[in-house]
Amino acid sequence: MIKPIGSDELQPRFIYDDAEHDKLSKEAEGLPSVVISSQAAGNAVMMGGGYFNPLKGFMNVADAMGAAEKMTLTDGSFFPVPVMCLLESADAIADAKRIALRDPNVDGNPVLAIMDVEAIEQVSDAQMKTMTDKVYRTDDSEHPGVAAFNSQGQTAVSGPIQVLNFSYFQTEFPDTFRTAVEIRNEIAERGWKKIVAFQTRNPMHLAHEELCHMAMERLGCDGLVIHMLLGKLKPGDIPAPVRDAAIRKMVEVYFPPNSAMVTGYGFDMLYAGPREAVLHAYFRQNMGATHFIIGRDHAGVGDYYGAFDAQTIFEDEVPAGAMDIEIFKADHTAWSKKLNKVVMMCEAPDHEKDDFVLLSGTKVREMLGNGEAPPKEFSRPEVAKILIDYYQTL
Amino acid sequence: MIKPIGSDELQPRFIYDDAEHDKLSKEAEGLPSVVISSQAAGNAVMMGGGYFNPLKGFMNVADAMGAAEKMTLTDGSFFPVPVMCLLESADAIADAKRIALRDPNVDGNPVLAIMDVEAIEQVSDAQMKTMTDKVYRTDDSEHPGVAAFNSQGQTAVSGPIQVLNFSYFQTEFPDTFRTAVEIRNEIAERGWKKIVAFQTRNPMHLAHEELCHMAMERLGCDGLVIHMLLGKLKPGDIPAPVRDAAIRKMVEVYFPPNSAMVTGYGFDMLYAGPREAVLHAYFRQNMGATHFIIGRDHAGVGDYYGAFDAQTIFEDEVPAGAMDIEIFKADHTAWSKKLNKVVMMCEAPDHEKDDFVLLSGTKVREMLGNGEAPPKEFSRPEVAKILIDYYQTL
Repeated sequence: MIKPIGSDELQPRFIYDDAEHDKLSKEAEGLPSVVISSQAAGNAVMMGGGYFNPLKGFMNVADAMGAAEKMTLTDGSFFPVPVMCLLESADAIADAKRIALRDPNVDGNPVLAIMDVEAIEQVSDAQMKTMTDKVYRTDDSEHPGVAAFNSQGQTAVSGPIQVLNFSYFQTEFPDTFRTAVEIRNEIAERGWKKIVAFQTRNPMHLAHEELCHMAMERLGCDGLVIHMLLGKLKPGDIPAPVRDAAIRKMVEVYFPPNSAMVTGYGFDMLYAGPREAVLHAYFRQNMGATHFIIGRDHAGVGDYYGAFDAQTIFEDEVPAGAMDIEIFKADHTAWSKKLNKVVMMCEAPDHEKDDFVLLSGTKVREMLGNGEAPPKEFSRPEVAKILIDYYQTL
Repeated sequence: MIKPIGSDELQPRFIYDDAEHDKLSKEAEGLPSVVISSQAAGNAVMMGGGYFNPLKGFMNVADAMGAAEKMTLTDGSFFPVPVMCLLESADAIADAKRIALRDPNVDGNPVLAIMDVEAIEQVSDAQMKTMTDKVYRTDDSEHPGVAAFNSQGQTAVSGPIQVLNFSYFQTEFPDTFRTAVEIRNEIAERGWKKIVAFQTRNPMHLAHEELCHMAMERLGCDGLVIHMLLGKLKPGDIPAPVRDAAIRKMVEVYFPPNSAMVTGYGFDMLYAGPREAVLHAYFRQNMGATHFIIGRDHAGVGDYYGAFDAQTIFEDEVPAGAMDIEIFKADHTAWSKKLNKVVMMCEAPDHEKDDFVLLSGTKVREMLGNGEAPPKEFSRPEVAKILIDYYQTL
């Protein structure tokens, strides 16, 4: 199996040993504590599950600047984005060597992790701007990722962490949330050798399904890991259980036995486009995928990024040899009326827009809301049925 | 967390190391091989997943007799049933030290495991009879477990095994099949401390759901593991995906978040009643459960066993200290018309049969087949809907 990044075995920061877990949980209640940002909490959950291997905790400012500027930490190791715990103020934990990080996303703010504090530093305005410029390629406060990053405060607390739970992801998405440890384990049990990962936050229509089939076929993969971002939803989005059911039905009906796994991870979207694509590839290697599908405007938002920036960054900016996972470069896929099948749009240069069956998200929602299945060239009927059933309950 | 039986950590016989797995898979193709019985294959899958910890492989005749007669192997360790690889003939593997065990349940009979042969022995008719008498409490060839046991042959090949896959269980039940390794792992990740396991092969109606709630409440459990036997189905049984969907819907709607896990294991039913109940408890401890629900006529068939033999065996026959898992003794549960709730029948001594809402399996199937939901005192409407949808497709 493909090795994790930076070590021979995954070194998740979650405490699996029961006695140790009990001891730490008790200790945590007596420690100085702070409620961290939602982004920091997502980072802790990812480190808990082994996805950010070999990171042991939150970066200090020098490492974060290195990650932002050249994806390289002060010890020379590779990491594509800053992983910081930024606070408005460190007054509550001043001088403490060991602190409890509390969860902003769960009622009562339970302890999510314990940190051995190595540094508490102020991040300058110039450093904040450099980081957003490099990671998001803009410092525009209208960019949702930049806005979220800048809203956290400028006091960076850093040091290794011990993770005690997986926040609301484990509780709210019990059938879908999986750690990198679990996915590696299951890949071994299924005996897969060549595994492509697919990132999604939405139900998968025919074009997405066919993109996965295409990637598997061209790469010669025996396994597909559909890996959903489980984060807060925007109003109007399909709720996670419905999305899950639709994707699971698609896998059940349209994928051969033992060829696809439906899973998810707990993290807030950065909308950092190319940099986020690199991060996406990074943690897919850690969970055991050998390949990762990156399509048009991957992890982008608005018009901040060029359509294929998230692909070219791998050649232009990722240090050689930093990762073993390979990317599968894709374009949008859609049903071709000329060819009577789903094609990758860049591979049908003679097609005009009208040669494809294309429907806007708004149009699809409208049809489903009226109890109407989109055409079979757009949606599998089994998937459409689940989505219609959901819209009928609204 | 509760320790596995016989070792501090689970020692599953599945080969997780990828390089080692490749090497063994190649080696296996050149080894003398034999297609084993379905029961032996189930045993191999259970050992692969860590459920039969600390067993390393198939028992020789002395150990099997010890397990049958007093649940004790020749080295003094505890195991509740013989775990044998019985063949019609060992001609194909005569004198071989290392052999491949082929899967009877998958097309092409792929290699399921490799065995280091320690002994090839003939089992006498008297020994076969002793084993069935002790394990099944009968040697009646009409008993389905006895019939299956006796149909395998009387040549016992024994020795440690290395398991290469999980037969059809992993491929056909990808969302439900779980090894003991995976369930332990997930219990740790969910942070559960007191876990009750529930054995089922059927969709769960209100009485089963309430039995689980009752057990959790009385024991003070924070976790429930619904653990399905994934074996071949009898004609007329609900197919696994439908049963899964019905159970998952029940959990989604009627259990608090992070309180129940829906899982399954790959094994053929023995119908050995009390002895099988002990085996069921044994492998539930290995997967991390602290408690196990045993109801009326658990794992029984026909009228071979007394209604509560599967409970009393734990006091009467299981050696003291053999297991740490505790059993939760239950009776049938049903809706009481007098009390307007589900009760355990033994706890309502003033009730007559007519005071309960009881429906035969035949009656329930008939109603569902007619598109009719059983009364809400019998079935949750969400569960009934899934079952009706299935019957409408027949």
